[in-house]
Amino acid sequence: MVTMASPLERAVQVGSQRIAVSCGDVQLTYAQTAERCKRLVAGLRGLGLGAGDRVAVVGPNCHRYLELYQAVPSAGMVIVPLNARHTSAELRYAIEDGGVRVLFSALGDMGVADAVEHVVDLDDGYEQLLARSFPEEIRTEVDENDLAGLFYTGGTTGASKGVMLSHRNLVANATHMAMCWPFTVDTRFLIIAPLFHAAGSVAVLSTVWSAGLQVTLPTFDPARALDLIEQHAITHTLVVPTMLAAMSEEQFSRPRDVSSLQHLGHGGSPIAAETLRRAHAAFPSTALLHVYGATELAPLATLLPNEELVLDTERVRSCGQPAVGVDVAVIGADGTRQKTGEVGEIAVRGPNVMLGYWNKPAETAAALVDGWYRSGDLGFQDEEGYVFLVDRAKDMIVSGGENVYSTEVEDALYKHPAVLEAAVFGVPDKKWGEAVYAVVVPRSPVQADELIEHCRELIAGYKIPKHIDVRDEPLPKSGAGKVLKRELRSTYWESADSDVAGA
Amino acid sequence: MVTMASPLERAVQVGSQRIAVSCGDVQLTYAQTAERCKRLVAGLRGLGLGAGDRVAVVGPNCHRYLELYQAVPSAGMVIVPLNARHTSAELRYAIEDGGVRVLFSALGDMGVADAVEHVVDLDDGYEQLLARSFPEEIRTEVDENDLAGLFYTGGTTGASKGVMLSHRNLVANATHMAMCWPFTVDTRFLIIAPLFHAAGSVAVLSTVWSAGLQVTLPTFDPARALDLIEQHAITHTLVVPTMLAAMSEEQFSRPRDVSSLQHLGHGGSPIAAETLRRAHAAFPSTALLHVYGATELAPLATLLPNEELVLDTERVRSCGQPAVGVDVAVIGADGTRQKTGEVGEIAVRGPNVMLGYWNKPAETAAALVDGWYRSGDLGFQDEEGYVFLVDRAKDMIVSGGENVYSTEVEDALYKHPAVLEAAVFGVPDKKWGEAVYAVVVPRSPVQADELIEHCRELIAGYKIPKHIDVRDEPLPKSGAGKVLKRELRSTYWESADSDVAGA
Repeated sequence: MVTMASPLERAVQVGSQRIAVSCGDVQLTYAQTAERCKRLVAGLRGLGLGAGDRVAVVGPNCHRYLELYQAVPSAGMVIVPLNARHTSAELRYAIEDGGVRVLFSALGDMGVADAVEHVVDLDDGYEQLLARSFPEEIRTEVDENDLAGLFYTGGTTGASKGVMLSHRNLVANATHMAMCWPFTVDTRFLIIAPLFHAAGSVAVLSTVWSAGLQVTLPTFDPARALDLIEQHAITHTLVVPTMLAAMSEEQFSRPRDVSSLQHLGHGGSPIAAETLRRAHAAFPSTALLHVYGATELAPLATLLPNEELVLDTERVRSCGQPAVGVDVAVIGADGTRQKTGEVGEIAVRGPNVMLGYWNKPAETAAALVDGWYRSGDLGFQDEEGYVFLVDRAKDMIVSGGENVYSTEVEDALYKHPAVLEAAVFGVPDKKWGEAVYAVVVPRSPVQADELIEHCRELIAGYKIPKHIDVRDEPLPKSGAGKVLKRELRSTYWESADSDVAGA
Repeated sequence: MVTMASPLERAVQVGSQRIAVSCGDVQLTYAQTAERCKRLVAGLRGLGLGAGDRVAVVGPNCHRYLELYQAVPSAGMVIVPLNARHTSAELRYAIEDGGVRVLFSALGDMGVADAVEHVVDLDDGYEQLLARSFPEEIRTEVDENDLAGLFYTGGTTGASKGVMLSHRNLVANATHMAMCWPFTVDTRFLIIAPLFHAAGSVAVLSTVWSAGLQVTLPTFDPARALDLIEQHAITHTLVVPTMLAAMSEEQFSRPRDVSSLQHLGHGGSPIAAETLRRAHAAFPSTALLHVYGATELAPLATLLPNEELVLDTERVRSCGQPAVGVDVAVIGADGTRQKTGEVGEIAVRGPNVMLGYWNKPAETAAALVDGWYRSGDLGFQDEEGYVFLVDRAKDMIVSGGENVYSTEVEDALYKHPAVLEAAVFGVPDKKWGEAVYAVVVPRSPVQADELIEHCRELIAGYKIPKHIDVRDEPLPKSGAGKVLKRELRSTYWESADSDVAGA
């Protein structure tokens, strides 16, 4: 039976003496990693944990995180990676909702010590647990459809839900990744995005399965990321767009030798074409890969490899074709498939689709319809199956009866050389219902009027922001680096709600 | 749900206007192929066939064969590819054992018309069936564990068994293939080995899934194979060792432009190092790939990519490391795992392992033990998991109490420049129990004594053939090109059996 245990088992079989992970000063072979995982599992069993029990982890990327991520499910328990940027209250929600028994934390007890049986420090405490445990066989009888991990979604769109991914879901994703990227024993993957997010953990199993090397960056820092690429001759990495932009800027201002980097992936949120152009200029010998997916898809749905070759075509706006192994369809309002070019909801089917949301049968039923995962993303496919996202269903602005896709407006703004970051959303408007509103962080001084004039040349009148707020502080972002539009927008909608309530 | 229908569905989505198959003068796009498959399925339903019904095919490789191979399972029926070299009696066995309702045959009724409801000619009859049918949706509700195909094993080792492969088995194999070889929309695969054999069909789903091109060679002919490689700028192919040897000889005698050929795989039976060296000399810019598996494994178990890089090392004798997604173990006589370097039976676990043998519960129980497929092959793994086969369990010779692996003796013979083909097996011997016996087909004139002297420098005395039969006609081979040792050996063992019976 192929389970989360299989990749490490193969890596030990084919490359026991190879370096599995490099984390700061720590380097561990696959044999050493397996030995540590055996001790970890023994330690957890010693704490009284068994099949199905939930074990949470919160902290920066490190070798211990990777051990927990692999060993906990391999032993039949359930890993619960928690967002390191969350507040104590948010963490408490996940811990209580998920019924977590043990929390491994690099950040102290986070004020939730009373909610779990054990808080284990992810540094010394972890090492002590390993040191006092005698290695035990990791793999237990696990059905491939058993729960392997509970992944609390990032929260850019409201209340957090525990996404239930099975062994098969995560293993299927590893095969989907490896059919696209060539993972071999010579792969050196830099984990930049946080491991609690799908963009951070997406390639862990694929890399281990090939007995490749993983290097961990504890928390995002563009200078440190580039240093590690140079130092370890990194071949693969995957980031979110805000990280890609920051890494490009860093490479322009202080170039490193990044010639080893064959594959630079990005995903997690839409990307502006201008960000891609700058990334290609910064990493000219690197193949850019756009991946689109969702935590609920473990996470891969579509892929656009060699994106640098389509920078000057319409396809630069696409997130690619369905991954081999994954079915993608565009579903209309009537529940049937849309024709080529027609906008509808992106739906996905395959062995990577989640079991459901933990303890949320209504949300599960809404998300999983006839075996298809409904993504909540609006988009269309062209005649060769390329998926073009037009917006999150809930980010679409309806202004004067016209649909305005916020990403299209953002794209127009990003084409202005002075725009470093842009976020577009709808605000309540008495005349139009919603009005298009933009927040821009400039790279160099710029006036709102100038940006509006710039947009006028690129997009229809009704799509042009009615107001542009040019501000100096960076846009608010989730722990994974996604722009929190909800937060930007909330001021306007809260007052509107008050208005309605007071009406 | 991912089924045998998924690859063609994706190919139509991402490459409807791309050429799917080139067969002689016929070229068909993916849209055309899908349309033809829809008519085929409608035609079969019109003949009264439904879920679970068996449809057999016998004939040379062609586009119609590929349509049957994909459409029949996609529609919930079961494809039964039959060996085109089999006698009428052998075909009747499979047809009756499998309960086949319709036989598509390019070879007439093969004397089995009374055993099926319909014999459809694979040329005009097939086209008429399509022409008179209105296209219907191919995909039906199929569980991934439903039977997709019944594959009657080649018969190098006794009574033929119907290997039951599910949708999931075949789809899993396609993912295992694609994680090793890069299959893309630019892949141009030449199908050389017969489609009724795993070596012929191994890459069909992987190629279609990527919307690549397949070119079919009707029956093996080394000159025609090389012509097609040159004509279609073929990138991938996979053959059995006897074909590889013949293609190398052909390339030496009349070189073609084979520079497009990136990947040349071989599998299906053990290969002599000398055959590999000649193949590398004949195809110097091509990566050689050794695959090892079994029909029961759908078929891939291990892979040795870039074999040309290890020609001068011990690893040239290996069939590679476990494919990602496949667990491989060496099991000793006591049923536990052997240590590194210890010979035992090769066992395989994974989603590619067959459901069992059709109507043969005892044989199934013997082959599938605790979720592992017992291959009947003897071998060991080195410290990096490389599998070295030493023999088929039943081809191992026990001579004077010593185990002699026939492949090791064959390897020694192949190192002599005059040896074109060699087969080694045991014959009854009053003194030694079994004696080592060799049949050799020479490339240039050579005496048995000279070959025995040659062996004496390479292998221990008890392994040296007691007798070498140098003969001019090629060794007998199965339809898939495997040397039929059973046939070579039978003369000796039948007379021995008579002796025993008469004693």
